[in-house]
Amino acid sequence: MAATEFDLIRHYLTGLGARRDDVRLGVGDDAALLQAPSGQCLAMSTDTLVAGVHFPEDAPVADIGHKALAVNLSDLAAMGAEPAWATLSLTLPQPDAAWLEAFAGGLDALARAHDVALVGGDLCRGPLSMTLQITGFVPADKALRRAGARVGDHVVVSGTLGDAALGLRYWQAGEQASDDQRALAARLHRPTPRVALGRGLRGLASACIDLSDGLVSDLDHLLTASGVGASLNEASLPVSDAARRVAGVTAARQAALTGGDDYELCFTVPDWAMPALSSVAADTGSRLSVIGRVVSGSGLCLADGRSLPAEASGYRHF
Amino acid sequence: MAATEFDLIRHYLTGLGARRDDVRLGVGDDAALLQAPSGQCLAMSTDTLVAGVHFPEDAPVADIGHKALAVNLSDLAAMGAEPAWATLSLTLPQPDAAWLEAFAGGLDALARAHDVALVGGDLCRGPLSMTLQITGFVPADKALRRAGARVGDHVVVSGTLGDAALGLRYWQAGEQASDDQRALAARLHRPTPRVALGRGLRGLASACIDLSDGLVSDLDHLLTASGVGASLNEASLPVSDAARRVAGVTAARQAALTGGDDYELCFTVPDWAMPALSSVAADTGSRLSVIGRVVSGSGLCLADGRSLPAEASGYRHF
Repeated sequence: MAATEFDLIRHYLTGLGARRDDVRLGVGDDAALLQAPSGQCLAMSTDTLVAGVHFPEDAPVADIGHKALAVNLSDLAAMGAEPAWATLSLTLPQPDAAWLEAFAGGLDALARAHDVALVGGDLCRGPLSMTLQITGFVPADKALRRAGARVGDHVVVSGTLGDAALGLRYWQAGEQASDDQRALAARLHRPTPRVALGRGLRGLASACIDLSDGLVSDLDHLLTASGVGASLNEASLPVSDAARRVAGVTAARQAALTGGDDYELCFTVPDWAMPALSSVAADTGSRLSVIGRVVSGSGLCLADGRSLPAEASGYRHF
Repeated sequence: MAATEFDLIRHYLTGLGARRDDVRLGVGDDAALLQAPSGQCLAMSTDTLVAGVHFPEDAPVADIGHKALAVNLSDLAAMGAEPAWATLSLTLPQPDAAWLEAFAGGLDALARAHDVALVGGDLCRGPLSMTLQITGFVPADKALRRAGARVGDHVVVSGTLGDAALGLRYWQAGEQASDDQRALAARLHRPTPRVALGRGLRGLASACIDLSDGLVSDLDHLLTASGVGASLNEASLPVSDAARRVAGVTAARQAALTGGDDYELCFTVPDWAMPALSSVAADTGSRLSVIGRVVSGSGLCLADGRSLPAEASGYRHF
């Protein structure tokens, strides 16, 4: 007898992630029952990963589980929210216990690391894809929004940019011979959501977004929401040593501008908050780079007057 | 230039459903910000519909939008919860404005009818499927769970059963010549979530589940969770006049036992609560049928001693 959805959910998708006292009833009924904290807003986001679109079909299975949660955690990080609960809807071509075990393992490890409980699961048959929905908490007046950047604010990004896009290029070409190539592929497959940094930015950042589609594309969303423009200093873009070595500095900077899937934070910070930002960077172990300034007007330009790359439009899911 | 995800989300998936004061920030940032009510639990559920698995590829597009929300509302109904917020993740083979408009229209109408705000949206490219996640409210001690049925309780179902399964049969055969066949297909495409009934069952029903996979399969989950069995009276199964006319009473009863996709509620009620249940049925305009009794032991049997149909195992998503 083929395994039923119920058997597979019970075995692999029940009890994933952290144990939390605010989960009154988890996976296994028609809905989960959750106790929201008083005095905070809920922050809620959802993201879908489709095989061949958002991750390579041949990506390591545990990494797919990691990434499905990581991209959602990154959304909460960009709001300054503390993650709490996730639901998972997983679509698989056929039941596959080994696949499910590896996927659940990758998801579980990241969920535990961020104290997230998986409170709902749905499993069905179809082309490989997964949707996670995540809920977290943030005081209403402390949430980081896209709107709020003001002229004169610094534009800051975390980590290094462009690694995932270069990683994808080498992964698709079957080139993982060097440590650098493997390091870049790991950035693609196992992004690090900047949750602690996002919380630290409460009260400091005037606006924030996470970088999923690429710096130029995502920063433009932030600027549009804020009704301002920005001037970027291309030489300040943080590119990794690995990217520089394998691709050269020009291609690395191009990837930093337009490559997607980095899941770093991009935010704006007024002058007065820069000292406190240094403390947050130190406390959270974050590498931060000031890459430009908010200016009046709209859109992005480079500080040296050169125009942005023509195809600097980020990922397009269509 | 092809429409981007952002353009399409902005145009078709923003502002769907009801306006609610507890939505501080809706679609358009990294996460929605929501104000949970004090003194109640959140009830949270997610369901995915995959084309060709959960709905026919050629189903009316507005009905697909309706159904994607209806199956999630049905989960909240089964918990006795009041729906509030939904997030949608939609995967489409290609951008298609006419499709999106029809889909959004079907979803929007049902969302408004139930005072649900669509607070988050994700749109990506891939094989047609959609995941909705829904959140509602219920006092913690009033939530209807699957566990709680006790020996002697009545087994009750809402509406008529088996219509959707018969509707699928005629739809797939291309037979919608008669009013009856069209009525059955409508039950498949546009299920009615029993939200008001679910709320009315708070404090009356000892256990509750919604019927997505079929009566025998879903009731078995309720019985297993409660540690009891049930004896059903086959002649009491509510079958519609349409089902009886087009399929005959034997096939209609078989469909009522094992057919999926009806999204009616199945619940257990102690003797003392039966008078109050009649009032709830009248107040909510619900047709309710007592179809059996909870007995000690485990599993389902028929009151006349005959065994259940061999393949009475409900839908299997694998």
